[in-house]
Amino acid sequence: MTDTITAETETVYTDRFGTVHPLPDAAAEAQVRAEDRAHVFHSWSAQALIDPLPIAAGEGSTFWDYQGNAYLDFSSQLVNLNLGHQHPDLVAAIQQQAGRLATIQPSMASDVRSELARRIVEVAPGDLDKVFFTNGGADANEYAVRMARAVTGRRKVLSMYRSYHGGTATAISLTGDPRRWANEPSDGSVAHFMGPYAYRSSFHSETPEQEAERALAHLEQLIVLEGANTIAAIIIETIVGTNGVLVPPPGYLQGVRALCDKYGIVYIADEVMVGFGRIGEWFAVNAFDVVPDLITFAKGVNSGYVPLGGVVISQKIASHFDTVSFQGGLTYSGHPLACAAGVATFEVFERDGILERVRDLGSRVVEPRLREIAAKHPSVGEIRGAGLFWAIELVRDPATHEPLVPFNAGGADAAPMAAVAAACKQAGLWPFIHFNRMHVAPPLVITEEELVRGLDIIDEALTIADGYVV
Amino acid sequence: MTDTITAETETVYTDRFGTVHPLPDAAAEAQVRAEDRAHVFHSWSAQALIDPLPIAAGEGSTFWDYQGNAYLDFSSQLVNLNLGHQHPDLVAAIQQQAGRLATIQPSMASDVRSELARRIVEVAPGDLDKVFFTNGGADANEYAVRMARAVTGRRKVLSMYRSYHGGTATAISLTGDPRRWANEPSDGSVAHFMGPYAYRSSFHSETPEQEAERALAHLEQLIVLEGANTIAAIIIETIVGTNGVLVPPPGYLQGVRALCDKYGIVYIADEVMVGFGRIGEWFAVNAFDVVPDLITFAKGVNSGYVPLGGVVISQKIASHFDTVSFQGGLTYSGHPLACAAGVATFEVFERDGILERVRDLGSRVVEPRLREIAAKHPSVGEIRGAGLFWAIELVRDPATHEPLVPFNAGGADAAPMAAVAAACKQAGLWPFIHFNRMHVAPPLVITEEELVRGLDIIDEALTIADGYVV
Repeated sequence: MTDTITAETETVYTDRFGTVHPLPDAAAEAQVRAEDRAHVFHSWSAQALIDPLPIAAGEGSTFWDYQGNAYLDFSSQLVNLNLGHQHPDLVAAIQQQAGRLATIQPSMASDVRSELARRIVEVAPGDLDKVFFTNGGADANEYAVRMARAVTGRRKVLSMYRSYHGGTATAISLTGDPRRWANEPSDGSVAHFMGPYAYRSSFHSETPEQEAERALAHLEQLIVLEGANTIAAIIIETIVGTNGVLVPPPGYLQGVRALCDKYGIVYIADEVMVGFGRIGEWFAVNAFDVVPDLITFAKGVNSGYVPLGGVVISQKIASHFDTVSFQGGLTYSGHPLACAAGVATFEVFERDGILERVRDLGSRVVEPRLREIAAKHPSVGEIRGAGLFWAIELVRDPATHEPLVPFNAGGADAAPMAAVAAACKQAGLWPFIHFNRMHVAPPLVITEEELVRGLDIIDEALTIADGYVV
Repeated sequence: MTDTITAETETVYTDRFGTVHPLPDAAAEAQVRAEDRAHVFHSWSAQALIDPLPIAAGEGSTFWDYQGNAYLDFSSQLVNLNLGHQHPDLVAAIQQQAGRLATIQPSMASDVRSELARRIVEVAPGDLDKVFFTNGGADANEYAVRMARAVTGRRKVLSMYRSYHGGTATAISLTGDPRRWANEPSDGSVAHFMGPYAYRSSFHSETPEQEAERALAHLEQLIVLEGANTIAAIIIETIVGTNGVLVPPPGYLQGVRALCDKYGIVYIADEVMVGFGRIGEWFAVNAFDVVPDLITFAKGVNSGYVPLGGVVISQKIASHFDTVSFQGGLTYSGHPLACAAGVATFEVFERDGILERVRDLGSRVVEPRLREIAAKHPSVGEIRGAGLFWAIELVRDPATHEPLVPFNAGGADAAPMAAVAAACKQAGLWPFIHFNRMHVAPPLVITEEELVRGLDIIDEALTIADGYVV
């Protein structure tokens, strides 16, 4: 793997027969693109209006297209590639597990499945000590909700506006962003509430403390009006991910925990995006000193090298199913190949001090540089985040906070953001763009030099955004 | 991998550090079991009432526990392991892909993803020429239904009683077996109908032709009574899998196709279990000369070595999404590691003549031997199947067809089937048992000797079932 890309100046890739080719390779690119356009149906897209970029290779924080262009991956693919492209330890773990026992069914016991479960509960808070493995984040949330319903005998679930919980039926009904709209009506079992978001407060707050307090009062009102005894669970992204890197103000999550305790509601923390090191914690709840009943995860657990997700379960919830059957499952639950990559992830995190590294780079490099950028560019309304997970919120009017592009903008309305994204790509950075925000979510193994270089590119690209400020 | 199990007489396994150990290995078994029991939450189970067997190794049609017991895998794990344990070509493909590019996000183009999509559509019937990749069968069915709803503007879906379509919310609502019960109410958008099942005909048929005709008349009645213009899709397992290896009688599926055409309904063929060679066809619909609008797949596409599923899409359905966005997706859609194992599956199938092999072994070895077994054992009510996919339906009364155990029996009620299963395991065969049936679903690479040996074990075990016949 390390010989795939030998140096930045000598860009090569390995085809699937093991042959190494120099880049650019127009013929290979044409074939990949032609077959993709003819036969691959892509997510969340109008198929004739997209042109997916064929990718030849990746290493660390960089990937290459077939023209030899290198991109610094500031979105970690879909914020899953926490240990970067082609991490040698993860690659070796997959290769070794493939050679010894690629798969075994969920009803049997597997050494790597057992070991990964133990590793996960060792870093989970409180009494969370069992793991139900799934294929990804959506089904993790589906099954977490199912557990909560079985345990409480209630059906309704509360979730936030400005949230994403996955694409399958229950998960998309929980989701509080436009991806839900086209998938309605749902089964009517979800009610959405407003979370804390100081920069665009629903509660006219003036301080973070006030925002926490008022958001909790709103949530409790909603619980009462929906009927506390009808509510099985509240599900919250510990830090809201795609919908804005919204870091909860001090006291908010503890307040949610208290409300759940008061009303007998299961607290589900969705850490699909933010778990496994993104903010320098195994689980983000650890930074907020709160213990949910269930934590869902995916992505960072093995950097998405093999599809894997799951639910970490408290003793209290798990014990309900000691003699009552849990009614859910999947063929690939606890897949050994996926678990092997998960075990290797723990080993790398511990050996290389990944969590400490993320906290250090976040506070020492990213945050100060983003503050500089915010001070310099009138288009930057706010920066916020933690660890290696930050949002730059862009505005047309710093005074009113009017966003640079409208909510859920597409086509011409989204042109200012598209122009910023294009400038980043042109300069060799692959950005994460959502609505009027750019997120900073590079692999956790990014070097300090790469991080600085990437932030410089963003700094430069934001001059385009400044041009739209009134 | 081939040195993991060097010979049946010298049983060894490789631990995850690459060290080879002889079996039995009581210490390793104890550790795997202890960690499993402490931390792994299992599918479809009451956690305190199960004792998952720790598995040390697998090769071809055989796997080994830590005591050194070998099991001939007549259930192909969860009917996914079509190319058997540790097939060298699949292992090599995974190892190589891991070393070159383990993953890339769905919005980009990938060589192995493109190639697998092309391979799949090349063997799909009619105008099915695009593939949407998912993580498994459940989400494949979720997204197939979503496509049908978007295209038709209708919401309702018809599916069969005696069916399984997956565990997530939409998929479990489609399911026509008891696993749905605990997950109700659903969103009310599914109506279930009776499929053809000559041995327990709902229609008092006397011939397969009559069963087909009457089942179609029933289905059309249901379409009319539910309101044809409210029905987006009909989803049918081409051969019903876990719920009975129910092979549709001649003309039935063509009749379904005609009804779908008549009423503007999308025909979804669920081939998660039966596709990719299980009956000696790439897609089982090919054996029935029918072209659905959507085919869902998983399992056999890469033997489950890496989680993968998908939807094969007709031009007509796909073209709807040329300029309209498809509202669904997942982080791991078209995962390169999974697709590499899929491409290798095509290469092995073609090189080794797997489809021909399955048809030959099915008709020359399995069917005649099962007919002998049926003639010999009064407990065998019926045998049915195709290729390497057969059911032995066990009865307490051959005259009335009263099943050996009641529908959905558990605990003491299920004791006769548990005794048969235990006898099989004792004799070195891992059986597939569901309700009052034993299925024969070994890996497609099973040797003729193993197949004969396994059927001999089943023959012997059925003397236990005979003891319950009135």
